[in-house]
Amino acid sequence: MTFDLASYLAERRRLVDEALGCFLPRADAHPATIHEAMRYSVFAGGKRLRPILVIAGAEAAGGMARDVLPTACAVELIHTYSLIHDDLPAMDDDDYRRGRPTSHKVFGEAIAILAGDALLTLAFGLIGENFAAPPAGGDPAGRAEAGAARDPRRLREVLAELADAAGTAGMIGGQVVDVLSEGKAVNGQTLEYIHTHKTAALIRASLRAGALLVGAPGGALEAISVAGSRLGLAFQIVDDILDVEGSLEELGKRAGSDRRKRKVTYPGHFGLEASRMRAKALVEEAKAALEPLRAAAKPIGAIADFILERRS
Amino acid sequence: MTFDLASYLAERRRLVDEALGCFLPRADAHPATIHEAMRYSVFAGGKRLRPILVIAGAEAAGGMARDVLPTACAVELIHTYSLIHDDLPAMDDDDYRRGRPTSHKVFGEAIAILAGDALLTLAFGLIGENFAAPPAGGDPAGRAEAGAARDPRRLREVLAELADAAGTAGMIGGQVVDVLSEGKAVNGQTLEYIHTHKTAALIRASLRAGALLVGAPGGALEAISVAGSRLGLAFQIVDDILDVEGSLEELGKRAGSDRRKRKVTYPGHFGLEASRMRAKALVEEAKAALEPLRAAAKPIGAIADFILERRS
Repeated sequence: MTFDLASYLAERRRLVDEALGCFLPRADAHPATIHEAMRYSVFAGGKRLRPILVIAGAEAAGGMARDVLPTACAVELIHTYSLIHDDLPAMDDDDYRRGRPTSHKVFGEAIAILAGDALLTLAFGLIGENFAAPPAGGDPAGRAEAGAARDPRRLREVLAELADAAGTAGMIGGQVVDVLSEGKAVNGQTLEYIHTHKTAALIRASLRAGALLVGAPGGALEAISVAGSRLGLAFQIVDDILDVEGSLEELGKRAGSDRRKRKVTYPGHFGLEASRMRAKALVEEAKAALEPLRAAAKPIGAIADFILERRS
Repeated sequence: MTFDLASYLAERRRLVDEALGCFLPRADAHPATIHEAMRYSVFAGGKRLRPILVIAGAEAAGGMARDVLPTACAVELIHTYSLIHDDLPAMDDDDYRRGRPTSHKVFGEAIAILAGDALLTLAFGLIGENFAAPPAGGDPAGRAEAGAARDPRRLREVLAELADAAGTAGMIGGQVVDVLSEGKAVNGQTLEYIHTHKTAALIRASLRAGALLVGAPGGALEAISVAGSRLGLAFQIVDDILDVEGSLEELGKRAGSDRRKRKVTYPGHFGLEASRMRAKALVEEAKAALEPLRAAAKPIGAIADFILERRS
């Protein structure tokens, strides 16, 4: 039986979008401006890769999407906040993202900063919601307990996982070195640091958080961790390649913008062909690491292929 | 026996400062710039009012400072992040705070934004640390279990408490309305909204988080909540009064800066005398609410008096 990735992604994306719609404050809740700004950026046509990886991580360890939806949404909110702040004039100064004006172009800088802050704050509240007691009368689906994900001892692990991956030892650390490297000659080691921290850390943590939530045993968690770091780096390398190759229509922002700002990119440093080969090798490594999990990890493997082949 | 508030505050401030020094990444940890920026703002001579209130909230419910130190530090990091972002050019555009150049004046806007983001992220990781397993070999102080604060079910409550108080239903909501009200005529209701959300929400949550962590029974929690909201609003009204009255030397920033920017203030709207009376009445209400907790809540009462009488 072939695995239908398109259906898999569409179904989970729908689940995530629906949950995000519920978890985010209504656009007309007071003060409306900030809630409009939060929703504007969250519902901007993202692929929902990271929350789907939270779900895929849980599934690879025997869990189900509904066990991990609040945390899956939390990861998307963390990702979205980082995009809003990255786009600010003081940072990358981008006017467009995915073909739409960036948050600060629409709402002004102050509200954009606060919308990012609010998404990050809400994300951590949501992780806690993953451990809410089951609704009175039991789980609507009829299970006695809605998932192993409700063991409260795991909340601390997941919290630490995401705070580390999003903090100065992860995503923010990568962004700091990226900002400080702008316009400078950067060696391969620094480039790898930026990519593994700015992008790969949160992608790895997404897979791990899903697995942790459903109590994955050590061996499975280790396999998922290795796959996550390979897949995360491959994703950023492909992003760099697309930025070099892409066009305005394909990416929704002016292609080559990283190069124009003299930002370090993988193809800029290692060349296009070597970058493509590296991404391919990383995806193979991810898939090899997942082999012991067999069919349960098939979605992650298919997502890895998808990351390599995506055109946007 | 009279209660020695100065010693009480000094001892707890020392505990908090020591813990903050441990919890924050070292200033030379890579990438050093962001860790220097985080420490620059955290160690800028703050009074540590909010973390001391976490401790006082725990003590009022029968707990001890060491049971709640990670969460106490988390609240201070949330407060510090909000100051860094509030001072940004796109927000209040302040060059000085407590007599020192603000973060973006020293480190640049990009790093200041990221330092705020990093403090907020670290804060939520720290709340989880409050639920870490006791060190192997037992608690150094010889207790079998280092505090009731380690019941993992409470982690979710404390997380929700602080995410709500710091989010758009609390601190960020207040800041949004403050930003949107600048230069506009504002009625008393809006002014009260800004003050209760921007400042009082986190102060109330600080007291509540301490009480929640040590498992305060419902009645005590309710008394502490009422005291917290009164005390939080009184704090902001006194802040407004000091801003009107203060001088450069006393406040470490140019006095009257709120007025110059045409920000709404309590004395600006209701007059100085009425503002002083309101603050006094709120402190009395806070102390009345705490009466059932008797001696255990004495520190909170003394802090309430201190908030009223402070000159900076």
